[in-house]
Amino acid sequence: MADATLTISSRNYSSWSLRGWLVCRMAGLDFDVELLSGKESSTRAELLHLSPSFLVPRLTHGDIVVWDVLAIAEYLNEIRSGAGLLPESAAERARCRAVSSEMHGGFINLRSAMPMNLRAQIPGFPIFNGAKGDIDRILAIVEDCLSRSGGPYLFGARPTLADAMYAPVCTRFRTYDVPLPFTAETYRDTILAWDLMAEWTQEAVAEPDEIEELDMEF
Amino acid sequence: MADATLTISSRNYSSWSLRGWLVCRMAGLDFDVELLSGKESSTRAELLHLSPSFLVPRLTHGDIVVWDVLAIAEYLNEIRSGAGLLPESAAERARCRAVSSEMHGGFINLRSAMPMNLRAQIPGFPIFNGAKGDIDRILAIVEDCLSRSGGPYLFGARPTLADAMYAPVCTRFRTYDVPLPFTAETYRDTILAWDLMAEWTQEAVAEPDEIEELDMEF
Repeated sequence: MADATLTISSRNYSSWSLRGWLVCRMAGLDFDVELLSGKESSTRAELLHLSPSFLVPRLTHGDIVVWDVLAIAEYLNEIRSGAGLLPESAAERARCRAVSSEMHGGFINLRSAMPMNLRAQIPGFPIFNGAKGDIDRILAIVEDCLSRSGGPYLFGARPTLADAMYAPVCTRFRTYDVPLPFTAETYRDTILAWDLMAEWTQEAVAEPDEIEELDMEF
Repeated sequence: MADATLTISSRNYSSWSLRGWLVCRMAGLDFDVELLSGKESSTRAELLHLSPSFLVPRLTHGDIVVWDVLAIAEYLNEIRSGAGLLPESAAERARCRAVSSEMHGGFINLRSAMPMNLRAQIPGFPIFNGAKGDIDRILAIVEDCLSRSGGPYLFGARPTLADAMYAPVCTRFRTYDVPLPFTAETYRDTILAWDLMAEWTQEAVAEPDEIEELDMEF
């Protein structure tokens, strides 16, 4: 039995679950995954993008119970300070937390119009104006981070919390066929080729479809 | 001249500005406040609740530029670890970050239906169902934290990041005349009587009205 348990909802649809899982793996934590049933009401609300779920992702580690990806990441950063979840320089660490918090609190239009769906690929998907504004801001962040750090990850040679936060957006860029400038396209491909992303995606594709299980239109 | 500058939008309407200012004061930082004009487009978007502003609150401290209240709080916690922004025990610290992140990323219905407005008091304000669900979750968090800590603040005798995050909601409870159970009512009154809240509110009430300046219906 592992030291810790990470509770998630869906591998295919839940971008927050993906982010939580990424930071736990990046920190080198030994953990089991508990997958909630799509029939549970809070999971259902999250899957249908009605509200963020307050239950997932949730990490249980001894007597510590911590939920929400940012809180999980800060907890992991405390117990695994050598794992490099955050950049070493104070200025870069502040910037990494800022762009991660932006992703956490914002981009509502993108989230609702273009939900994560790792199984889907929709060529020529029409992008409405609200989501365009969100995408423009994300592209500006990616461009700024990469020009400062030199890439290939947002803060340099290794993935940090910021990459975990922006990774689901990279999958949306692929799913919804979003045209990207060269820098962002390269970054998207770096993230999609990241070994942890490949591992997660493989499991996501193999999972039963929770939305179909909900027996509702999607 | 102070060591740092905190850039904010509106004292009356911007709950994020209030949260950023609270954590800077709680950390004992020596800082000036820069108030952006309500006519700037990003401020305007925030004031009209169209989107979170990416500009405010923003802290500039030497070569550090950090925006978004959670990122600012983690930065302050690093440089002023003795200030008590987060609880001392690891388990409580994790929980404090979790409920703070929940406030950061959620409660969209409450935010849009009942925006912060320190100057207003609207007896009998009708609360729609979506906001009710948000309020119920907030009341559950407050109840849980206070029963664990013994109060009067969410994590005990002194305010932490969590109180800064939930303080604007306490003002909404007053503004919109939200009926509260006894524990939450007591907590609301504790927050409203907090010396930092009294100081901020006094300045907010004295400020010219930015929404009126925008010359749009509110």
